[in-house]
Amino acid sequence: MVGRALAGRLSGLGHDVVIGTRDVQQTLTRTEPDSMGTPPYSGWQKDNATVRLATFPDAGTHGELVINATSGVNAMAALEATGSENLAGKVLVDLALPLDFSGGMPPRLTIANTDSLGEQVQRAFPDALVVKTLNTMFKDIMVDPARLPGHHNIFIAGNDTGAKETVTTLLTEFGWQQETIIDLGSIQSARATEMYMQMYFNLVGVLDTFEFNIAIVRA
Amino acid sequence: MVGRALAGRLSGLGHDVVIGTRDVQQTLTRTEPDSMGTPPYSGWQKDNATVRLATFPDAGTHGELVINATSGVNAMAALEATGSENLAGKVLVDLALPLDFSGGMPPRLTIANTDSLGEQVQRAFPDALVVKTLNTMFKDIMVDPARLPGHHNIFIAGNDTGAKETVTTLLTEFGWQQETIIDLGSIQSARATEMYMQMYFNLVGVLDTFEFNIAIVRA
Repeated sequence: MVGRALAGRLSGLGHDVVIGTRDVQQTLTRTEPDSMGTPPYSGWQKDNATVRLATFPDAGTHGELVINATSGVNAMAALEATGSENLAGKVLVDLALPLDFSGGMPPRLTIANTDSLGEQVQRAFPDALVVKTLNTMFKDIMVDPARLPGHHNIFIAGNDTGAKETVTTLLTEFGWQQETIIDLGSIQSARATEMYMQMYFNLVGVLDTFEFNIAIVRA
Repeated sequence: MVGRALAGRLSGLGHDVVIGTRDVQQTLTRTEPDSMGTPPYSGWQKDNATVRLATFPDAGTHGELVINATSGVNAMAALEATGSENLAGKVLVDLALPLDFSGGMPPRLTIANTDSLGEQVQRAFPDALVVKTLNTMFKDIMVDPARLPGHHNIFIAGNDTGAKETVTTLLTEFGWQQETIIDLGSIQSARATEMYMQMYFNLVGVLDTFEFNIAIVRA
């Protein structure tokens, strides 16, 4: 659902978007919602005909910029299938979260504190320019921050300054004001935004909505 | 420093405050700042003469409500010295953080994800009514939220509804508006606020100030 929200928005902005999957035919012929309740892809495809579905390696070859919007548990396998040669030298936006829902809500993290999924992705694909971002809010807010009133913030973390500039430009296309984008530093700072997920999912339960974000309030 | 900020504020509000320490004479006779740069207690005592210094068990006997403002690594020992019999049936406000600064800034947590210091304190003192709060911001903002403009939030977590009501009243005395106090649920939710510390200390570095807090922005 997150990938579709991003793909639809990027396509609407005029970008040429390809979504990667393991098995194109299988993805297109599914008629039931998946285990998370995501409606079948074919229906979404009809409304988003400019977005092409392709195998992971084909999507990797296509992209100038690659977005990892898989579930955290499948992230590494999806990126391996995309191919390190297709990720080398490219900006890799990572918004996957290493969540374990097996104990119910709020989920636990499978990686925390001394490592992060963002760092693991960067280590596994050392030639990719990994930028962790977008992973601290609901999909609809990621691509349309004006859904919420006033000022609220988004974070970026990564080792490459140029890659972070590219991602900042992309975020401003989504509607994020430059001054609301906070650069937390190197990819190690992915720990901060991934660990914030405990607070995020706790708030989802308490507020009974996904329609919120945090704002940093300064003196 | 956090304990002093709370003690000074509570005393100013008319509460009868005792600070617990291991060795009263040693605390009073120190003339050098400690390893964190905290100035010696004696100077602060002169400006806050209404706050009495006592041994941990004497402080425990005194208090109707006990605040654990120790460093996370010393929290359990300080509470054991205070005495489980002195904590039984009382509201125990826990704002200690299980931080490990040995790897530099930002610190790591020594407990995270599958447990929290708040839960450990509640398990170690099952008859205490533990409420985790105040642990997501700088000391000066804890006791005077109006230092920051507009709306920003504070969190409470604990198993006992009455204890959370008592703590909410205390927070409103500090200046927290009722609607800015978010009850995250049981003491297990201490995980959320303790894990937020990774983001907090990352932001301290990036913003180069402790003078900030987060606000939840809703649709």
